[in-house]
Amino acid sequence: MESLKNDLLLRAARGEQTERVPVWMMRQAGRILAEYRAVREKAGSFIKLATNPELAAEVTIQPVDLLGVDGAIIFSDILVIPEAMGLPYEMEEKKGPVFPKVVQSVADIDSLRIAEPEADLAYVLDAIKIVKRELDGRVPLIGFAGAPFTIFCYMIEGRGSKTFSVAKKALYADPEFSHKLLQKITDSTIAYLKAQIAAGANLVQIFDSWAGILSPAQYREYSLPYIKQICDAISEAPVTVFAKGAFFARQEIGNLNCSVVGLDWNMDPTESRMLVPNKTLQGNLDPCVLYASYDQIRKEVRNMIEAFGTQRYIANLGHGVYPDTNPDKVRCFIDTVKEFATTSAL
Amino acid sequence: MESLKNDLLLRAARGEQTERVPVWMMRQAGRILAEYRAVREKAGSFIKLATNPELAAEVTIQPVDLLGVDGAIIFSDILVIPEAMGLPYEMEEKKGPVFPKVVQSVADIDSLRIAEPEADLAYVLDAIKIVKRELDGRVPLIGFAGAPFTIFCYMIEGRGSKTFSVAKKALYADPEFSHKLLQKITDSTIAYLKAQIAAGANLVQIFDSWAGILSPAQYREYSLPYIKQICDAISEAPVTVFAKGAFFARQEIGNLNCSVVGLDWNMDPTESRMLVPNKTLQGNLDPCVLYASYDQIRKEVRNMIEAFGTQRYIANLGHGVYPDTNPDKVRCFIDTVKEFATTSAL
Repeated sequence: MESLKNDLLLRAARGEQTERVPVWMMRQAGRILAEYRAVREKAGSFIKLATNPELAAEVTIQPVDLLGVDGAIIFSDILVIPEAMGLPYEMEEKKGPVFPKVVQSVADIDSLRIAEPEADLAYVLDAIKIVKRELDGRVPLIGFAGAPFTIFCYMIEGRGSKTFSVAKKALYADPEFSHKLLQKITDSTIAYLKAQIAAGANLVQIFDSWAGILSPAQYREYSLPYIKQICDAISEAPVTVFAKGAFFARQEIGNLNCSVVGLDWNMDPTESRMLVPNKTLQGNLDPCVLYASYDQIRKEVRNMIEAFGTQRYIANLGHGVYPDTNPDKVRCFIDTVKEFATTSAL
Repeated sequence: MESLKNDLLLRAARGEQTERVPVWMMRQAGRILAEYRAVREKAGSFIKLATNPELAAEVTIQPVDLLGVDGAIIFSDILVIPEAMGLPYEMEEKKGPVFPKVVQSVADIDSLRIAEPEADLAYVLDAIKIVKRELDGRVPLIGFAGAPFTIFCYMIEGRGSKTFSVAKKALYADPEFSHKLLQKITDSTIAYLKAQIAAGANLVQIFDSWAGILSPAQYREYSLPYIKQICDAISEAPVTVFAKGAFFARQEIGNLNCSVVGLDWNMDPTESRMLVPNKTLQGNLDPCVLYASYDQIRKEVRNMIEAFGTQRYIANLGHGVYPDTNPDKVRCFIDTVKEFATTSAL
């Protein structure tokens, strides 16, 4: 058994007592840090950085050293899964990910493979191994994947979208086709998360970034069952489910075989505690709070911790940190959690 | 007093008994109709169409004739308010609205005027008068405006955005500046809605399209109080408040001096009835349902009506109809409401 010097995050995820609330930030390994931008520059592109294990490991560890977070999250992208299944993507400046080919027919689905992580995603697993060696037990490492529905959106739509109406059209127009693709993504994702854990990830997070575009009924049919399959399949490490915008599904997500439920900043902490009484909660400061003054950031962080309490709680933002955030404001957020959120402080 | 041949929409909005659920559609006057696209072509641009009272009136009435909806909504844009205040915008193909100049300082706010509808927005008021004459009491006419917070987003950010992080940054960084601009927008909006009613609008709707990007606390500080001012100021006609994504504020919106609360498709009908027991509800079919088969559309519409019931209810989509929707599918939606949602059918 690995011994971690700081296992707050892992203990909070498991529902164990912690002497202080652990804190990390979605997108902490990224453009907010000048040190990240330098490595990204050296790599030449986002995708070259993400597929280079040494460089990916380097930027993964940066926020542990530079910001003092209680966990590292492997630098990667949720879209490595479609790529590993046979649907490559490109990252266009300002536009984000673009898939030259999209899935349009059952024949297209049949032509995709179920990802074999050791072959198709070796670069991520190698990066995890390097991170683990270099972290040397300082903090736990988080692995992650997109939720099948969110991945489905990109594979059908081919790019980001405000409404993902093309992808949703597929759900309404051809449920059988949609379930077939979702199942193939799910099988790939389960294999991938298990491989990340085997390579050294201490816990894993499922990002359902586009959950909020579905109606409650659609979410119940096209997203939740596949997240459930993943949660049921992963017993090796704690699983966090973060379904942005799926306020209506909090109770159902809380009933899954997961350890942690992630919340966005629309979701009230007290109400969320009532809806999800038996799980650890993670979140949920509005990333825009980090544009405020230091005093106001401290006030908002303290309000958040008072609302969540100090147990079964992992402090985080309600979404990824915005790239133009001042790193000193980020440190203010992290330091305030560390100073304020001890068992004795409340 | 004007006599309407079909006043279902108005009676439902007022909370009166109706023998059938009224139905209309957000964005019904628009690109779904070939007849609209022909007029838009003739006008030369979206803005030329919106500022030409005869043509704007023509496309306003089209869905009444072609789709059989129970209300017309004046063809216009929420961004006519910033324009009337002195901040003009352009409509870019595929990109949507763009403001060449944005509001960045208190001096910028001071340079804006409070809109004088009779002078600055005469083209909308003229269009309303033409519509009223040509409708000749067939159905009620809906006027509208953006909620102050949504207008604020565009005036600060200068264009659409997934996060409106620049606009939200202003809220956190400079509350005083933000309240000052919001108040000026509110004063303009109240004058504008009163003028629309004076020109003939039978009811008015406030669109808070970007409500969902705020935390509950921010919504309570920066959006709700200004919507409240509008609701308190308008006693001449029923007011509908549609705050997309503000699931967390339904109860508070229901306590405003408004007649109707609009719901998006994430908001469960039964739960919304409990949260807003004393108002008429409007919504909330996922616009993507109209991509499904006719049978499935009928099934989803019937489910929706069963969930809402036939009284104090106005059937609508949960957001604007998507431009690539087949008009026959739209007619199926409208006809199903008309056939199914009579008092005796449930």
